[in-house]
Amino acid sequence: MALNPQYDQIGTGFVTQYYGMFDNPATRANLVALYNVEHSFMTFEGEQIQGAAKIQEKLQSLTFQKINRAITAIDSQPMFDGGVLINVLGRLQTDDDPPHAYTQTFVLKPIESSFFVQHDVFRLALHNMA
Amino acid sequence: MALNPQYDQIGTGFVTQYYGMFDNPATRANLVALYNVEHSFMTFEGEQIQGAAKIQEKLQSLTFQKINRAITAIDSQPMFDGGVLINVLGRLQTDDDPPHAYTQTFVLKPIESSFFVQHDVFRLALHNMA
Repeated sequence: MALNPQYDQIGTGFVTQYYGMFDNPATRANLVALYNVEHSFMTFEGEQIQGAAKIQEKLQSLTFQKINRAITAIDSQPMFDGGVLINVLGRLQTDDDPPHAYTQTFVLKPIESSFFVQHDVFRLALHNMA
Repeated sequence: MALNPQYDQIGTGFVTQYYGMFDNPATRANLVALYNVEHSFMTFEGEQIQGAAKIQEKLQSLTFQKINRAITAIDSQPMFDGGVLINVLGRLQTDDDPPHAYTQTFVLKPIESSFFVQHDVFRLALHNMA
């Protein structure tokens, strides 16, 4: 499969859609539909999870109600299987916690006319890091 | 190709080797040997570069002599082509600049008994981000 020339729009569009659902506690667990039953990996603050069922458990365990998110950069690259690599750098504040820098990397894998999230790595920076 | 069960050691070993060469101005440009002539993408602070020749130019343009680097986290995942996805979060100080948080993502692609860097995304956090 060839490089997808729309990789940049796909990356930006995906991030907008993903965080739109993530940041609303009513829709957060629906994100599981973006992951594959077996072929999806999530690493959340160092915890490694595989497959949609366990990813759904993880999403449901995130109980914060209010998220303030500021995105600093979205860097996307086309992948040689037609997928898209997306690297997000941003700042995040949940409920009454202090704001933290964070990084999240997604690998979107093409499937029919769409994509699923094959890889997802999320990590908060230490509070005193910048 | 199957998932590589050594992905975590490969990720950590790669990051150690890569930054060992990067942080020494005498060996930095030699990193080009880790990239493919055509099939490597680098995004450096938003600038997109493809192929070893242009990546070498970029590496040679980075003239800082002294690097203080602290790695906060290395998160690796096995990929379904036998490769490894590596996400690094750290803090970086070059010469007399203030320290910045940064994120760097690598995708290692298997080739014969080794790997090359197929994707490399580097981004500094804003100074006031933590």
